[in-house]
Amino acid sequence: MNTFSFYNPTRILFGRGMEEHLGSQAAQYGTKVLVHFGSNRVKENGLFDRAAENLRNAGLEVFELGGVKPNPRLSLVEQGIELCRRNNIDCIIALGGGSVIDSAKAIALGVPAEHTVWEFYQGTAQPSAALPVGTMLTIPAAGSESSNASVITNEDGGLKRGFGHELIYPRFSILNPEWCFTLPAYQIGAGASDIMAHLMERYFTNAAPVELTDRLLEAAMKTLISVVPRVLAEPHNYDAWSELMLTGQMAHNNALDVGRTGDWASHDIEHELSGMYDVTHGAGLAVVFPAWMQHVLHHNLGRFVRWAVEVWGVEPDYFNPELTARRGIQAYKAFSRSIGMPVTLKELNIGAESLYKMAEKATDRGTRTLGNYVPLGAEDIYRIYTLALE
Amino acid sequence: MNTFSFYNPTRILFGRGMEEHLGSQAAQYGTKVLVHFGSNRVKENGLFDRAAENLRNAGLEVFELGGVKPNPRLSLVEQGIELCRRNNIDCIIALGGGSVIDSAKAIALGVPAEHTVWEFYQGTAQPSAALPVGTMLTIPAAGSESSNASVITNEDGGLKRGFGHELIYPRFSILNPEWCFTLPAYQIGAGASDIMAHLMERYFTNAAPVELTDRLLEAAMKTLISVVPRVLAEPHNYDAWSELMLTGQMAHNNALDVGRTGDWASHDIEHELSGMYDVTHGAGLAVVFPAWMQHVLHHNLGRFVRWAVEVWGVEPDYFNPELTARRGIQAYKAFSRSIGMPVTLKELNIGAESLYKMAEKATDRGTRTLGNYVPLGAEDIYRIYTLALE
Repeated sequence: MNTFSFYNPTRILFGRGMEEHLGSQAAQYGTKVLVHFGSNRVKENGLFDRAAENLRNAGLEVFELGGVKPNPRLSLVEQGIELCRRNNIDCIIALGGGSVIDSAKAIALGVPAEHTVWEFYQGTAQPSAALPVGTMLTIPAAGSESSNASVITNEDGGLKRGFGHELIYPRFSILNPEWCFTLPAYQIGAGASDIMAHLMERYFTNAAPVELTDRLLEAAMKTLISVVPRVLAEPHNYDAWSELMLTGQMAHNNALDVGRTGDWASHDIEHELSGMYDVTHGAGLAVVFPAWMQHVLHHNLGRFVRWAVEVWGVEPDYFNPELTARRGIQAYKAFSRSIGMPVTLKELNIGAESLYKMAEKATDRGTRTLGNYVPLGAEDIYRIYTLALE
Repeated sequence: MNTFSFYNPTRILFGRGMEEHLGSQAAQYGTKVLVHFGSNRVKENGLFDRAAENLRNAGLEVFELGGVKPNPRLSLVEQGIELCRRNNIDCIIALGGGSVIDSAKAIALGVPAEHTVWEFYQGTAQPSAALPVGTMLTIPAAGSESSNASVITNEDGGLKRGFGHELIYPRFSILNPEWCFTLPAYQIGAGASDIMAHLMERYFTNAAPVELTDRLLEAAMKTLISVVPRVLAEPHNYDAWSELMLTGQMAHNNALDVGRTGDWASHDIEHELSGMYDVTHGAGLAVVFPAWMQHVLHHNLGRFVRWAVEVWGVEPDYFNPELTARRGIQAYKAFSRSIGMPVTLKELNIGAESLYKMAEKATDRGTRTLGNYVPLGAEDIYRIYTLALE
């Protein structure tokens, strides 16, 4: 087990009716609040109005900024920063999924900064302050509701970059599974695929032994595998949604993987896909991850065998561990298909033409490697894209 | 799943050498620090001196108060409160196990209070402030290093009472498994038994379905069962100690059991034992818990069958679930014996004479019930003590 430092101060308010606490929570952090959101779904279903009313009843002045898109854009973040500065807004509520929350975190970082917020994402500056952020999560996927991370896309060059800092842990996050009942099936599948990827990135580690966290991550993966089909079959099943929403939150709050170093190459490899083709993140991960697994299978076959047996219930072939491991990958792909996800680039209408270019870009023209489990250069990444083709 | 609110801001610094951060951590919270400890072990093994030096190097003035005993006493807490007030101490470092940490939390609560600190434990007052507490954990057991709870014994009447409040979450806790290498085997066993009990109290719940947290708790129990024998066989095995120490911390920080209502009757039933006979808490739990299980077995047989199969690896007898469940209890008792714990009151030299008196006391003369899974009156508790006799 690695030495580690763990800290996660986000307050989680979970379940039916918890939105009633929005105003009293936000009032602890500010008086003028920006409600940040994406599509008009939250306007149409009344959630925005209920949130705004609850905030006003708690004595807060409410501003709004919608329009966040998947792979949230720097340009909207800059608009939000200006809006906050102009109106002395001192608290941000993200009402939506991971993209909205990531966008809100970026605005929170940018308001007190004396330079462009993109510098944080480029790694050329560190923040000393940020506005407090609270969230109301409507899509279980990114885990941003209790993470210290934010991923933003700079349209200028299609650059998608992440940044993490303790200052952007949400102060509180409200999760009511009922808000997910009307999500389209594709978004449910993509969200589940993202959650699965968060667990797998952490699972494939060189830290050893890591017995407790191996088991905790396996517990979360098994839960996910069992509940997603239930949610898709019964989108109004509160119990099933509760498990999915909680799994999504715990998959990315760093509690289940203390003492490990996760891999994260597949996330970076996918970021190039969504940066260039605007692929839904979870769909891209369902394509990239199995190809990554094939590429790194022999680095530690035992870990893939354990994963196949413990998570996917593959019957171990004691005389052919490689076959056992490959059956795990097959089970993962079958699961992805069953929840409506693609497992090849072909299904995303992406051909071979830009694969090498993306591999070069992902490694900053070969100047860095991706991933910790097996560090990957441009050639490795190109091979992974190729394995993912069809 | 129940609706829930989760918040745990304790910063965990885990692993070899992490004590180097003590001074810099404490300096964020105060300038005059009380190092609170129990036996002279931490003086003899040099840990106290290293901690004090690290604190002084960070510019802090160091005071000390030792002498905390298992089942920490109110009288020493009151001494600590006086010492802090007299010297304007503004931060407390607990150097030891759960008893030391609980005592430090009580001092932290008492210093700014305008009445006796016991009022908090009696439930007749709520705190509005507390000194910041940091911990250096030397015994994995109580989980107090990342909990908001403290249990204190008032010698006047042998009353053992717990109190919980967000103000007494430790600001940081430093856990270095190396500090546990010299623990006596009995203390290791008792600590492991306490950790097991923390997981089981949470596991036996009426909240349903609670799929993710069922699996997480099972993961932690299985880890504990596998690592404790390794630690006992090789007390200098850093890897095995790491798993045990981490399991102890996670078992009681409330992250693995969100959305559930734990039982906690066995803890209360044991508190009477240790209040009257000064029994080691973990040893008392190893005696009380199997008897409690026999008493409540039929409340939800399926849960005991699941526990037997998933945690203890009992082969399910599909045609005799009760037998399957009872085999789980047998496996638990065999495990307790294998780690040096008693499983009967007889082994603790406790006879039948005071059992009814304790059952009456536990229920405040029949005015309250214990436990959430099955609420227990004095007669139930008397039966459980009787089942535990031999």
